[in-house]
Amino acid sequence: MAAWGERLAGVRGVLLDISGVLYDGGEGGGAAIAGSVEAVARLKRSRLKVRFCTNESQKSRADLVGLLRRLGFDVSEGEVTAPAPAACLILKQRGLRPHLLVHDGVRSEFDQIDTSNPNCVVIADAGEGFSYQNMNKAFQVLMELENPVLFSLGKGRYYKETSGLMLDVGPYMKALEYACGIEAEVVGKPSPEFFKSALQEMGVEAHEAQR
Amino acid sequence: MAAWGERLAGVRGVLLDISGVLYDGGEGGGAAIAGSVEAVARLKRSRLKVRFCTNESQKSRADLVGLLRRLGFDVSEGEVTAPAPAACLILKQRGLRPHLLVHDGVRSEFDQIDTSNPNCVVIADAGEGFSYQNMNKAFQVLMELENPVLFSLGKGRYYKETSGLMLDVGPYMKALEYACGIEAEVVGKPSPEFFKSALQEMGVEAHEAQR
Repeated sequence: MAAWGERLAGVRGVLLDISGVLYDGGEGGGAAIAGSVEAVARLKRSRLKVRFCTNESQKSRADLVGLLRRLGFDVSEGEVTAPAPAACLILKQRGLRPHLLVHDGVRSEFDQIDTSNPNCVVIADAGEGFSYQNMNKAFQVLMELENPVLFSLGKGRYYKETSGLMLDVGPYMKALEYACGIEAEVVGKPSPEFFKSALQEMGVEAHEAQR
Repeated sequence: MAAWGERLAGVRGVLLDISGVLYDGGEGGGAAIAGSVEAVARLKRSRLKVRFCTNESQKSRADLVGLLRRLGFDVSEGEVTAPAPAACLILKQRGLRPHLLVHDGVRSEFDQIDTSNPNCVVIADAGEGFSYQNMNKAFQVLMELENPVLFSLGKGRYYKETSGLMLDVGPYMKALEYACGIEAEVVGKPSPEFFKSALQEMGVEAHEAQR
């Protein structure tokens, strides 16, 4: 860790991305990126606080952590900051009941949220769930609201899988923004609030963090 | 027609929209809007030139004209300016071979176009055809091009059917623009080139037309 010394002066905590940094997704769940399992282990042995900060929104934290542990990573659910739980917190604080356009894999994160008679829409990387019918339903819900509120879990353009480039949630967020003439609230990176919540959960100030 | 006299002074031609002006779409093809059949007949009996200018991109001109004639309108295929044939003209002029993301109903308009080894993408109101898989394929084609060219037949946000509001091609154009970091070329209204081509086909200058 000698080489890190200067760069990490004053740093108390490290935020680690997951997908594309710790592992690459693909067939069978994915594969750890060379050296990443050891790097996480070394960080955890160091004086630094470590937290995992992801925009993953196709999987629940439980599923994501299960996958990472199978790949050899030392990580627990409580160490992960992800958009779905952050969105749930906002929904509760503002008394909002979402219509969900999300991947089935992440739906369980919203189990405690009232989704009856929706007064907002939450979209996440829904993959094949981004059918015309599902997009149109989300659009219709927004258009029926006096004050349409759209949350997007991240705003990534695309990501890479072994099979090729895949459209992320961002393009679909733009589609609904244009259709309804509104601007979405992004929950997840690069939203400053999202990074702040990750730092708070780690007990570290912004100037003391490295990502 | 006396009341029209002053308003139409100097006007030689009239461009008529079709959907929402002559008829409303819906179950069983749609219904003529009250008075519109007679209005078209009167215009055609007058000294004015008449042309139909539509952004309809789910149907071929043949199918659209067939529907209008069944509803009682005096209209022929040669009197209709529509985005798909306008796009075909541009594709031929620029030597472009499109990957098509369009409704099956309009595909026949592209019968004479080479779609092998595509070097551009054409999207139109594809309805249910806007699946994740089809959008991702169009995205991948664009990303593999050194100079990605995207044509969008219109850029409407949504339209109304008897069953409710339906997403139009515009939101999907925005999605691909954002995903690829490009700007689409719109073929159809409100593109000035599209109106100009309709006027040329009618043999009327812009200042002599009323729409």
